[in-house]
Amino acid sequence: MIDYLIEKIKKTGAPIVVGLDPTMKFVPEHIKKAAFAEKGETLEGAAEAIWLFNKEIIDKTYDLIPAVKPQIAMYEQFGIAGLIAFKKTIDYCKEKGLVVIGDIKRGDIGSTSEAYAAAHLGKVQIGNNYYAGFDEDFATVNPYLGSDGVQPFINVCKAEKKGIFVLVKTSNPSSGELQDRLMKSGTTAGAEQGNNGTGNISFADRPLYEIVGEQVAAWGEQLMGKYGYSSVGAVVGATYPEQGAVLRKLMPKTFILVPGYGAQGGTGKDLVYFFDDNRLGAIVNSSRGIIAAYQNEKYKKFGADNFADASRQAVIDMITDIDQAFISVGK
Amino acid sequence: MIDYLIEKIKKTGAPIVVGLDPTMKFVPEHIKKAAFAEKGETLEGAAEAIWLFNKEIIDKTYDLIPAVKPQIAMYEQFGIAGLIAFKKTIDYCKEKGLVVIGDIKRGDIGSTSEAYAAAHLGKVQIGNNYYAGFDEDFATVNPYLGSDGVQPFINVCKAEKKGIFVLVKTSNPSSGELQDRLMKSGTTAGAEQGNNGTGNISFADRPLYEIVGEQVAAWGEQLMGKYGYSSVGAVVGATYPEQGAVLRKLMPKTFILVPGYGAQGGTGKDLVYFFDDNRLGAIVNSSRGIIAAYQNEKYKKFGADNFADASRQAVIDMITDIDQAFISVGK
Repeated sequence: MIDYLIEKIKKTGAPIVVGLDPTMKFVPEHIKKAAFAEKGETLEGAAEAIWLFNKEIIDKTYDLIPAVKPQIAMYEQFGIAGLIAFKKTIDYCKEKGLVVIGDIKRGDIGSTSEAYAAAHLGKVQIGNNYYAGFDEDFATVNPYLGSDGVQPFINVCKAEKKGIFVLVKTSNPSSGELQDRLMKSGTTAGAEQGNNGTGNISFADRPLYEIVGEQVAAWGEQLMGKYGYSSVGAVVGATYPEQGAVLRKLMPKTFILVPGYGAQGGTGKDLVYFFDDNRLGAIVNSSRGIIAAYQNEKYKKFGADNFADASRQAVIDMITDIDQAFISVGK
Repeated sequence: MIDYLIEKIKKTGAPIVVGLDPTMKFVPEHIKKAAFAEKGETLEGAAEAIWLFNKEIIDKTYDLIPAVKPQIAMYEQFGIAGLIAFKKTIDYCKEKGLVVIGDIKRGDIGSTSEAYAAAHLGKVQIGNNYYAGFDEDFATVNPYLGSDGVQPFINVCKAEKKGIFVLVKTSNPSSGELQDRLMKSGTTAGAEQGNNGTGNISFADRPLYEIVGEQVAAWGEQLMGKYGYSSVGAVVGATYPEQGAVLRKLMPKTFILVPGYGAQGGTGKDLVYFFDDNRLGAIVNSSRGIIAAYQNEKYKKFGADNFADASRQAVIDMITDIDQAFISVGK
């Protein structure tokens, strides 16, 4: 699946992904009005509103971008109706040829991760039939439970030609509380036990995110694609460019999903060190900055009626920003 | 919410929770046949089968136990239909007076955790109305993103009188890969920044799970109940009794949800040190060991037709096992 994503990035010249994370605050009044008129001020009405909102943004941007990243929490908050809108969004994006990264951040003990992997990337067997529950192309995965919480996702990726991005260094302000903690040199207790079975590995003091980064790189060897990158990727926030540069070197075959551009504070020049010399190796997400562009001073001229045109312009500007950042460092 | 759970535990004399984690392998043939006859060998058919399976187990055990813990992954794998069965299970358990712990292990950046918290413990505003998406009583939360991924859950708990259990030391074999890593003494980089704003805390070398345990205890101060325990609890696996004993002392006001009893290997005598001298402070989960008891040699005499009677007997035996373990150490 990473090969297909890379081909889409090359074709569009846009190493970006649009985060489809709708909240009711972002949805223009005329869309809410139409949705509520049909389904009432209910969970179903809200779900209809975010679906109509998404659809218009997808229609106005799909030709410019390789991928979208719907954040399932934004749908899950509207219960079953919201998750139906999540599924409709996935299916519609795939119809439009977009790669769909389900931002689900699941991760659990082995048997439970198996169920999550089946839900989002694979299929379940029912009698003699097989069904896909949500069927994204990629999913984000939380590594806190270790290898046996991640491997079931990798197994499904192998079978279904899908991919994952494992959280390494997240974009939020408090990500350092655990992820930046220095791990003592030579730590061996339980280390790698699920990974290579040997147990003992020695290393110098270094932060937890580096340990996780190396694990991700090791897991990735199982799913290498033809362009030198693995379908087991990593999440590293745009808001931590120095750590991004370190991780880029530590995980040379790991594709990096980079959240935190735009509204969270990351800019094009923060991002160039996440990429290799061929402008590959990373894909940058923007959510609010694109989908709620019409609420931003810069794009106000479009107005709420043309909110999706504002999103299209924001995509074009983001591609230009990253392009200029590449040029400025000679990439 | 922790007060209500404690009262239910005292009333039943059973510090246990039944994990409603159905898979198709556990569902007896006669139930599958009935469900498939009505809805076909489809996602809807599978969801109907697990709902019928759950309902019978709930009907046969609800008077003995304080709480249930449905694992959402087991429902999510059946897509929308599965999540409808999850919601039906929650509602039915609450009708029966059971405390419902949604085992969802969510956790994300602040704005996203807000959405998850609203989805599972709180309400969303739509127009002038407020709706609850799933409405569990407790949810499990992943701490990898730090304070700003956890605090939104705590805020909703305050408003809605709900609770959470934060993953500290999980029950799976590879939990040590990250959680047991020794953190270097005196580490300060980014530490506690989202927690108390001071940044610098010094400490001796110790494993990550202790750091997380202390954070959980600190977060818990915001939600203390009248019996000396907080509505911010912790997850610590029965499979790691030594760590459980350490954590019990480190987090004296933290209620501990203990998975891993039974099928995962934990026994009654492993568990006594998770509890205080009043037999409180912890609640032990068993999933497969209860819901699939009829498939176990010990309960085979019940037969598939009476699978829920086997579950009832397994609950009674589990209560006895823990009770005897208490007696053996004079608790």
